[in-house]
Amino acid sequence: MKLHIINGPNLNLLGKREPKIYGKKSFKSFFTELQFKFRKVELSYFQSNSESDLITKIQNAKADGIIINAAAYTHTSIAIADAIAAIDIPVVEIHISNTHAREDFRKKSYLSPVVKGCIFGFGMQSYELAIQSFLNQENA
Amino acid sequence: MKLHIINGPNLNLLGKREPKIYGKKSFKSFFTELQFKFRKVELSYFQSNSESDLITKIQNAKADGIIINAAAYTHTSIAIADAIAAIDIPVVEIHISNTHAREDFRKKSYLSPVVKGCIFGFGMQSYELAIQSFLNQENA
Amino acid sequence: MKLHIINGPNLNLLGKREPKIYGKKSFKSFFTELQFKFRKVELSYFQSNSESDLITKIQNAKADGIIINAAAYTHTSIAIADAIAAIDIPVVEIHISNTHAREDFRKKSYLSPVVKGCIFGFGMQSYELAIQSFLNQENA
Amino acid sequence: MKLHIINGPNLNLLGKREPKIYGKKSFKSFFTELQFKFRKVELSYFQSNSESDLITKIQNAKADGIIINAAAYTHTSIAIADAIAAIDIPVVEIHISNTHAREDFRKKSYLSPVVKGCIFGFGMQSYELAIQSFLNQENA
Amino acid sequence: MKLHIINGPNLNLLGKREPKIYGKKSFKSFFTELQFKFRKVELSYFQSNSESDLITKIQNAKADGIIINAAAYTHTSIAIADAIAAIDIPVVEIHISNTHAREDFRKKSYLSPVVKGCIFGFGMQSYELAIQSFLNQENA
Amino acid sequence: MKLHIINGPNLNLLGKREPKIYGKKSFKSFFTELQFKFRKVELSYFQSNSESDLITKIQNAKADGIIINAAAYTHTSIAIADAIAAIDIPVVEIHISNTHAREDFRKKSYLSPVVKGCIFGFGMQSYELAIQSFLNQENA
Amino acid sequence: MKLHIINGPNLNLLGKREPKIYGKKSFKSFFTELQFKFRKVELSYFQSNSESDLITKIQNAKADGIIINAAAYTHTSIAIADAIAAIDIPVVEIHISNTHAREDFRKKSYLSPVVKGCIFGFGMQSYELAIQSFLNQENA
Amino acid sequence: MKLHIINGPNLNLLGKREPKIYGKKSFKSFFTELQFKFRKVELSYFQSNSESDLITKIQNAKADGIIINAAAYTHTSIAIADAIAAIDIPVVEIHISNTHAREDFRKKSYLSPVVKGCIFGFGMQSYELAIQSFLNQENA
Amino acid sequence: MKLHIINGPNLNLLGKREPKIYGKKSFKSFFTELQFKFRKVELSYFQSNSESDLITKIQNAKADGIIINAAAYTHTSIAIADAIAAIDIPVVEIHISNTHAREDFRKKSYLSPVVKGCIFGFGMQSYELAIQSFLNQENA
Amino acid sequence: MKLHIINGPNLNLLGKREPKIYGKKSFKSFFTELQFKFRKVELSYFQSNSESDLITKIQNAKADGIIINAAAYTHTSIAIADAIAAIDIPVVEIHISNTHAREDFRKKSYLSPVVKGCIFGFGMQSYELAIQSFLNQENA
Amino acid sequence: MKLHIINGPNLNLLGKREPKIYGKKSFKSFFTELQFKFRKVELSYFQSNSESDLITKIQNAKADGIIINAAAYTHTSIAIADAIAAIDIPVVEIHISNTHAREDFRKKSYLSPVVKGCIFGFGMQSYELAIQSFLNQENA
Amino acid sequence: MKLHIINGPNLNLLGKREPKIYGKKSFKSFFTELQFKFRKVELSYFQSNSESDLITKIQNAKADGIIINAAAYTHTSIAIADAIAAIDIPVVEIHISNTHAREDFRKKSYLSPVVKGCIFGFGMQSYELAIQSFLNQENA
Repeated sequence: MKLHIINGPNLNLLGKREPKIYGKKSFKSFFTELQFKFRKVELSYFQSNSESDLITKIQNAKADGIIINAAAYTHTSIAIADAIAAIDIPVVEIHISNTHAREDFRKKSYLSPVVKGCIFGFGMQSYELAIQSFLNQENA
Repeated sequence: MKLHIINGPNLNLLGKREPKIYGKKSFKSFFTELQFKFRKVELSYFQSNSESDLITKIQNAKADGIIINAAAYTHTSIAIADAIAAIDIPVVEIHISNTHAREDFRKKSYLSPVVKGCIFGFGMQSYELAIQSFLNQENA
Repeated sequence: MKLHIINGPNLNLLGKREPKIYGKKSFKSFFTELQFKFRKVELSYFQSNSESDLITKIQNAKADGIIINAAAYTHTSIAIADAIAAIDIPVVEIHISNTHAREDFRKKSYLSPVVKGCIFGFGMQSYELAIQSFLNQENA
Repeated sequence: MKLHIINGPNLNLLGKREPKIYGKKSFKSFFTELQFKFRKVELSYFQSNSESDLITKIQNAKADGIIINAAAYTHTSIAIADAIAAIDIPVVEIHISNTHAREDFRKKSYLSPVVKGCIFGFGMQSYELAIQSFLNQENA
Repeated sequence: MKLHIINGPNLNLLGKREPKIYGKKSFKSFFTELQFKFRKVELSYFQSNSESDLITKIQNAKADGIIINAAAYTHTSIAIADAIAAIDIPVVEIHISNTHAREDFRKKSYLSPVVKGCIFGFGMQSYELAIQSFLNQENA
Repeated sequence: MKLHIINGPNLNLLGKREPKIYGKKSFKSFFTELQFKFRKVELSYFQSNSESDLITKIQNAKADGIIINAAAYTHTSIAIADAIAAIDIPVVEIHISNTHAREDFRKKSYLSPVVKGCIFGFGMQSYELAIQSFLNQENA
Repeated sequence: MKLHIINGPNLNLLGKREPKIYGKKSFKSFFTELQFKFRKVELSYFQSNSESDLITKIQNAKADGIIINAAAYTHTSIAIADAIAAIDIPVVEIHISNTHAREDFRKKSYLSPVVKGCIFGFGMQSYELAIQSFLNQENA
Repeated sequence: MKLHIINGPNLNLLGKREPKIYGKKSFKSFFTELQFKFRKVELSYFQSNSESDLITKIQNAKADGIIINAAAYTHTSIAIADAIAAIDIPVVEIHISNTHAREDFRKKSYLSPVVKGCIFGFGMQSYELAIQSFLNQENA
Repeated sequence: MKLHIINGPNLNLLGKREPKIYGKKSFKSFFTELQFKFRKVELSYFQSNSESDLITKIQNAKADGIIINAAAYTHTSIAIADAIAAIDIPVVEIHISNTHAREDFRKKSYLSPVVKGCIFGFGMQSYELAIQSFLNQENA
Repeated sequence: MKLHIINGPNLNLLGKREPKIYGKKSFKSFFTELQFKFRKVELSYFQSNSESDLITKIQNAKADGIIINAAAYTHTSIAIADAIAAIDIPVVEIHISNTHAREDFRKKSYLSPVVKGCIFGFGMQSYELAIQSFLNQENA
Repeated sequence: MKLHIINGPNLNLLGKREPKIYGKKSFKSFFTELQFKFRKVELSYFQSNSESDLITKIQNAKADGIIINAAAYTHTSIAIADAIAAIDIPVVEIHISNTHAREDFRKKSYLSPVVKGCIFGFGMQSYELAIQSFLNQENA
Repeated sequence: MKLHIINGPNLNLLGKREPKIYGKKSFKSFFTELQFKFRKVELSYFQSNSESDLITKIQNAKADGIIINAAAYTHTSIAIADAIAAIDIPVVEIHISNTHAREDFRKKSYLSPVVKGCIFGFGMQSYELAIQSFLNQENA
C-alpha cells in the first residue's frame, strides 16, 4: 500500500513555531516515526506553500490514498478541491488542531465535501489515524 | 482502557434503513466485531433518541474516553455540547457519513468546538478510528 | 386503513389555553368526533412533549399513514425529520394555525422537505383534511 | 357553494411537460373529474400566465372560496398577495409539488401569510383537498 | 403644465377596501377634487394591475411630470424602475400609507433610487403634495 | 399655525459646502424666503449638531407640526426616533437629497416608521412641501 | 406565596464543575440557604436535563410564580417558550452567568420575549433577585 | 434552422435612450443587419414589456433555438425561468451590457441555471454570438 | 453604600408619556419612594439625553455601584459601553420594559457584555431589584 | 489578429476526467481543431495551475485579445481580476460548464466585472464563440 | 504647518485605565513630548466625549491637517464622517490599538472611506506617524 | 536596522498602469529614493505575483521588520496571514490606495488582525511612514 501525505502552506514550520498549537516536533522527524510505525506501508510526503504545486501533486499522485493537510488553503482553495474531485484516488482530509475551536473562517472547508473522510484535532496523531483508516479498509 | 460509545437519535435504525448512507449492518453486530477486534479495550455502548438521556449519560460516564455520534443532535443541541464541556473525560466526535457533503444544516456542529477531535465520513469505520485514536494516545 | 396521529409539545393543552389561536375543544373530544366521522378508518393518536418519544413513535409506527403536528419541534428538530425520512410510511405534516402568519421562526420547518404533503392553517380541520388525503389516495 | 380555482403561470402546460413533477394529466381533464366528484359544488377555473390577470380575477371573484395555485408568482408577487388580502372571500393556497423539497427560492411564499390555509405536495389531489376544506367548513 | 398620475396594482380598489389603511374615497372622486383644486394643471390618471401596462405607459408618457404610486410593484419591479430611468420626464414616487411602518418587504423600493423625489405616508394627500412639488418648481 | 423646523448635524454648512448635493443657499436665507412665502404660518427653525439637543428640542416643541431633517442621525439615532414617538405633535421627515440613491447606509431610517410622512429628494423644496403638507391638512 | 424554581440541562452539575463560571456551591445547599433567607415564601425546585420534563413541569405548575434557568435550552427551545406563553403564571427568566459576554449563540433567548422579566449575570444571586421581584410586587 | 429572439421589458427603447449603455441603433435596424448576415437562418424576433407575453411566447415557440434577453425580468422572474425549464428547445441567455459590472441586483439571474449557455456584455454583438452558438453546434 | 442611577434619553418623560409601556409615575416621585424604601443606601440619580454627558457621568462616578438605564443608547452606543468597561465600579444594566418583546433593534445591547448583570422588564421595579442586587452582595 | 487563450487550474485534465461535465477531448487536440477552423487568427494557449503564472501571463500578454477560463480561480482570485483590470488588452471570460447551474460558490466571479464579456456553458464551444466575438468586432 | 489632533470619547482616560491596551501615559504628557519632538509644527489638541463637539470642531478647524482618533464613534457616527467629507482640510484617521484584532464591531469604520489615510495599531506612536505623514507631504 | 519590503501581486506594474490610483513612479525608482532618504536603514525589497513566494519570503525573512503590501492577497490569503502570525519579526501592513473607499471586497483584510499596525491610503508615502514607524520605535 502506497500512501501520500500532502502538507500545505506553513506546515514546513512544524516544530519550530507556535508549539502550543502544533507541537515541538518537526514533520521530518515525525515522518521517520510514522515510517517506523507503519513499516508495511510505503509512505511519502510532500510539503509546499504553493497552491499550484499542491494541485499538480494531487493530479499526478500515484498512490492508494492521499492524506492532505491543506492548512490555510483548506478555507480558500476551490482549485485544490477541484483537483481532489478530479482524481480517482481516495483522499482523507486532516488537521492537526481542532479548526472548529479557532477563528470562524477556519470552520469552512472547501475540501470536506469532496474527500472520503475528515480527521480533525488529534495533533500529529491525525496523520496516524488517517493511515490507519486506509489500513483498516484494506483489512476489511 | 474503558471507552464508551454514545449514539444519538435514529442510530438504533442502523442496518435497517437507508443502507446507501449508513450500511446494512446493525450497530449491535458491528459492536460485537469491534469488541472482538479491540479485545484489550473495555468497550460499552449506549443509544438513545433522547437528548436528555444522552446528556445524563455523558455526565455520568466513568470511562477513559467517550466516542459520540450525536446524529441530528450534533446540529441542534447546545445542551449536549455543554455536557461535554463540563466533564473531564476526553470526547471524540464521529459521524458515519460525510456530513459536509449533505444538507447545509448538517455542516454546523455545536459539538466540534468542545471535543478533542472529529472523525467524519469513514462509514462504520469512523468508530474504529476513534478507538484507535485513544489507543494511539495511550501508546504514545 | 390505519392512520396514526402524532401531536407534539404543548398540544396536550388544546382547548384549555390560548383559545384564540387553537380553539376551545380538547384534542380528546375532537378525536372522538374524528373517529365518528371516519368510522372506516382505524384512527389512533399519541401526544408527547418529548422529542425522543415522538421519534420513537415514528420509528415504531405500524400504520398506513402518519399525521404529524410537531408543534414547536417543527422548527427545531432535525432528529424528528430524520426519523420521518427513515421510515417507509407516508407522513402528512399539519398545523392548526397558519404558521406563516406568525413569528419568523415559525416559518421554517425541518419536516416539510421530508413529508409527503403539508396542510397548514385550517384549525382542527387540518387533521380532517389530512385523513381525507389518505382516503382520497386509497380511492384513487 | 361556488368555488373558483385560479392557476398561475405555466400551469397550462400540466400533463404535457415535466410529468415526473406534475403528472401526465391535463388540468382540463382533471377538472372534469373534479366536477364529477364534487357535483354539488359549482366549480370554475381560470389559468393565466399574467400576474395582472390573476390579480383582476381575484378582485372580481364572486365565489364562496378561492383555491389558488400561483405557481412561480407564489415566490415573487406581493401584488397577488395584496389582492388576496383586499378581498373578503376565503382563499386556500395549494401547490402540486412539495415546494419545500425543491430550490430554496421556492420555500418563500408571499401568499401564505394572507391566506386561510395552505395545502402543499399532494399532487393534483391538493386541489381536491382544498375543495374538501371548504365543504368540511360548510358542514361544520 | 401636464402631469400624469400612474397607479399600480390593487389601487383600483381604493375606497372599497381596507379603509383603515387607504381611506374611504374612490380614486375617481378624489381625482375630481384634485382637478378642481389644481385647475391650471392638466391632470390625467391611469391605473393598471399590469406591470407591462405601467411600463408602456411610462415609456409613452407625454407630460411635464409623472406621479407614480406603483403599490406592490414598488418592491418587486426592476422593469418599472428601468422604464423610469430610461425616460427624460421627472418622476415623483408616492405612497398613501407609510410603507416604512408596515412589513419589512415594503421598506425596499426599486423605484426610489431612480426618481426625483419620494413622498410617503400622507394618505391621499401624498398625490396633492406631488402635484405641488411640480408647481413649486415651475414657480421657482 | 405654528411649525417648527429641526435640522440635524452638518446642516449648518448648507450653502457653504458640497453645493452639488445641497445647493448654494444658506439655510438662513432660504428660511427668510420660506417665511415670506408662507406668511400666515408661524415658522421657526433650530439646527444642532447634537443628538441630545435635537431630542430635547423635540420633547419641548410647542407647535402644530415639526419638520425634521435629521441628516446623518436619521440612520443611527434610535433616541431621536423614541423622542418623536413620545410626543403628540405630528412630525414630517424630510431630506434634501435622494438618500436612496446614495450609500447603502443612508437607505435605513430609524425615523421613518414613527413619523406621519416622509419627503425625500426635492432639494430645499422638501422643506416647502412639508409645510404645504401641514397647510393642506388644515384646509382639508 | 408559592414560587417554583425550574433548572434546565447540566445545572445538576452546579458546584461540581466549571466553578470559575458557576461557583462552587451545589444547588441543593444553595437552595437551603434560599429557603432560610425567604422563610415566608414556599419555595420548591426542579431540575431536569429533559426538555419535555421542563415543559410538563411548566404546564403543571401550581405556583404564584416560576423562576426558570433554562440553561442551554434557552437558546434552542421554542417548545419551552410555547409552554411559558401558554400558562397564566408569571415567569422570570434568570441566568447565573452573563450570557451576553459569552459565545454568540448564547445571546439569543427564545424565552425572553414571553417572560415577565429577565435577570442575567448575578451568579447564584440571580435566583435571589428573582424571588425578590415576586416579593416586591406583592408588597407594591 | 429557425431561431427565435425574445426581448424583454424596455428593450423596445433600444437606440432611443441611454445610448451610452445600449448603443444608438434600434433593434429593428439591427435585426435587418442580422438577417442579412445570417441569410441561411430563419430569424424572427419578439419584444414585450409583459412577463406573461414572454412566458406564452416561450411556451409556444416553434424553433430550433431561442435567444432571450429578458432584461429586468432576468433578475425577478421565476415564472420565465419555469417556462424555459418546461420546454425542450435550447435557450441561450444574452445581455447587451455586462450586468456584473452594474448594480448588485443585476448580478442574480433566475434564468442562468436553466439555460444552455449565457453570453453577457458584448453589446448588440451578444445576439450575433448567440446565433453563432447555434450554427456552430449544427456544424459540429 | 452609595449607588448612582443613570438614566438615558427620553427617560425624563417618564410618567408623562406612553404610560402603557412606562407607567404613570415621574421618575422624581419614584425616586423619592426608592429613597424612602432604601434609607440606608445613599442614592443619587442623573438623567440626560446626551450620550457624552452619560459617558462623562460614568467616568466621574464616585459610588459603590452604578445602575444604568441607557434607553435608546443601549442599542447604539459603543462609547457608553467603553466608558463602563473603563471604570472599576460595578454596573448593573436595567430596562423598564421587556426590550426582547419589542422591535428587533432593541434586542441588541452594546452594554450587556461589559456589565455585571442585567435586569429587564420589571417596570419601575427593575431599579429596585438592581439596588437589591448591590445590597445582597454586601450582605453575602 | 493574435488571440491568447489562458486556462486556469485543473484544465490540463480536460478530456481525461469528469467527461460528463467537461467532455472527452484533451485541450491540445481541441486547440488543433480551433487553429484549423480559425486559420487567419494567430492563436496561442497557456495553461497553469498557478495563480501567479496566470497573473504574469496576463501582464505580459502581447495580443489583440485574451480568452480566459480561470476555472476555480474565477471564484477566489482578486489578484487575477486586478491583472485584467491593469492591462489594455480586451479580455473575454469563458466557462465550459454552466457555472450558474452548479454549486453556489461557483456563481460568484471576481473576473466578470472587469472583463469585456462573458460566455458560459457552451462546452468547448465557449472558446470558439470567444474567438468569434473578437473576429466579429474586427469585421464590424 | 498647523496640525489639529481631535480625540474622541473616553480618550481623556488615557494613562489612567486599561494600560494593557492603551499604555500608562496621559495624553497631556504625551502631547508635550510630541510638541518637543515636532517643534516646527504648530500642534493643538482637543478631546471630547461629545459627538457634536467633535463635529463642530471639525467644521471649524483652521489647520493644515487634522489627526482624528474618533474612538468608539469611529464605528457608529455617520455624522462625524459627514463633517470630515464636508471640509477641505485633509484628515488622517488613527487608532492606538489594532482595532482589527478586537471585537467585530470595531472592524467597521464610517470614517475610513472619507479620510486621506489610516494609521492603526502603533500605540501612541500612531499620532506621531500621522504628524510625519503631513510633514512628509510638505517635503515631497 | 534591516527592513524588508514585500510587495504582492500586480505591484510590479506600479508606475506603468492605472496612474490615477497608483501614481506614475515605478517601485524601483521609488525604492532608490527611499534608500537615499533612509540611508541608515538597510532596506531591501521583494515583489512577487505568487502567494507561495510571498509566504516563503516571510518565513525566511532575516530582518528587524517587514513592511508588506499584499495587494489583492490582502483580501483572500489566510496562508499569508498564517505566515505572518508564525514569525517573530514585527510586520506592518500598508496599502497605497485607501482600500476602504473602493470595492466592498477590499475592506476585509486577513492580515490586519495579525500585524503590528496598518497604514492605508497615503500613496507611495505609506511605505515611508512604515519605515518611520520602525525608526520611531528604535528611538523610543
